[in-house]
Amino acid sequence: MTGMLYVIGLGPGDEGQVTPEAREAIAAASHFFGYKPYVARLDLRNDQIAVPSDNREELDRASAALTLAAEGKTVAVVSGGDPGIFAMASAVCEAIDEGPEAWKSVDLRVVPGITAMLALAAKIGAPLGGDFCTISLSDNLKPWETIEKRLRLAAEGEFAIAIYNPISKARPWQLGKAFNILREILPKEIPVIYGHSVGRENEKIDITTLGEAVAEDANMSTCLVVGSRFTRVIDRRDRPFLAYTLRHVREGQND
Amino acid sequence: MTGMLYVIGLGPGDEGQVTPEAREAIAAASHFFGYKPYVARLDLRNDQIAVPSDNREELDRASAALTLAAEGKTVAVVSGGDPGIFAMASAVCEAIDEGPEAWKSVDLRVVPGITAMLALAAKIGAPLGGDFCTISLSDNLKPWETIEKRLRLAAEGEFAIAIYNPISKARPWQLGKAFNILREILPKEIPVIYGHSVGRENEKIDITTLGEAVAEDANMSTCLVVGSRFTRVIDRRDRPFLAYTLRHVREGQND
Repeated sequence: MTGMLYVIGLGPGDEGQVTPEAREAIAAASHFFGYKPYVARLDLRNDQIAVPSDNREELDRASAALTLAAEGKTVAVVSGGDPGIFAMASAVCEAIDEGPEAWKSVDLRVVPGITAMLALAAKIGAPLGGDFCTISLSDNLKPWETIEKRLRLAAEGEFAIAIYNPISKARPWQLGKAFNILREILPKEIPVIYGHSVGRENEKIDITTLGEAVAEDANMSTCLVVGSRFTRVIDRRDRPFLAYTLRHVREGQND
Repeated sequence: MTGMLYVIGLGPGDEGQVTPEAREAIAAASHFFGYKPYVARLDLRNDQIAVPSDNREELDRASAALTLAAEGKTVAVVSGGDPGIFAMASAVCEAIDEGPEAWKSVDLRVVPGITAMLALAAKIGAPLGGDFCTISLSDNLKPWETIEKRLRLAAEGEFAIAIYNPISKARPWQLGKAFNILREILPKEIPVIYGHSVGRENEKIDITTLGEAVAEDANMSTCLVVGSRFTRVIDRRDRPFLAYTLRHVREGQND
């Protein structure tokens, strides 16, 4: 007997950004796996069981969820933001790929969510309004050389760059190094936007330039957008700054 | 007297993916601007006024909305997907930047939505599970040379690539050319995912390889994801194929 596995995106934190589809999936499931703070956001019924776990245990968590689902249960794995962006959906697929044949029969439903960069971009205007790259600075799962190469290529392509996992206690120097790499290629005037705890109570959005950007201003709850030569900042005086990336690219427009 | 301007993301089409925040904004506004098919998705009250317009009139539409908002009205501009991804938020910011001073006083609220690539990725697994680039193939607003350069750099960086606006009657050759450019750099085995009308009634997801991909299989309602060397496909036999991009990059793992 085969059950279901939902992999649900809860959005960045604002309950108004949790989709009805996600709410329905939460109502349907009996067991909930996920990183503690995400499971803590769920308002579960008495008959629903929370199985919170620590961060960086993605494959174990995915396997535990798939085991229960293969037994016929309706199981949920929850992620903040979107489960497909540096979150649980890839880990669940990897577990299915490498696990027992029975896991391939589980009815898998990934439920998308508002990912951090979209919530941050909306708060400040439209800094991802043109072509952009999305890069995680975590070198837990990939070599730093790969990250460095991708940052250089993204800058050479004049993409705006959304940065996830910029810094943590275990990874204190990566963001500073990333800024230095980008400064070698990009003009110092380019806007850099810090979104701290976007969609949560202590939300704070800061804007600076690549020349002035310092890693110490970011923390584990920060998502960043580094603009491009085509990103503009609007000083509205009686309202917060806006930042947006032009939809058009024309030669000479930035001289 | 200064009003409000909401720029609202309606998600790709599935009503279950419209956030409560978007519903609230729709309930609050009196006038609705947007490309016809998006405005048609709204279930407006008798006292709410729809102002649909053709595609490619973004700046005019933004200006008309800002004019009304500056007069004190509560106005909405609606986009499919997320308004910050190749949609109206950047056009509205550009209009504010270049328009009358009074437009800077309008209370602008961008409401994020599920953008097409997130909905598509969720349907097939997690092809955007690692670093990725998001590129519009429309050369209406930027030179084709810029797009070509960005495709090459994205391929060299082994990013997965989400492609928006792949093809239209006025732009028939760009996607085929893009596939050719990517084939010069990437292995032919790399998965290519076509999401047609994702989240809508006629939704269809196809998967092929870069070697076999043809532009004619895409249309104006298609969003694509070109995987990387780290994207895997799972044949589940009694269930649809899954595709996911590994969270980890290790040398030798793909040989």
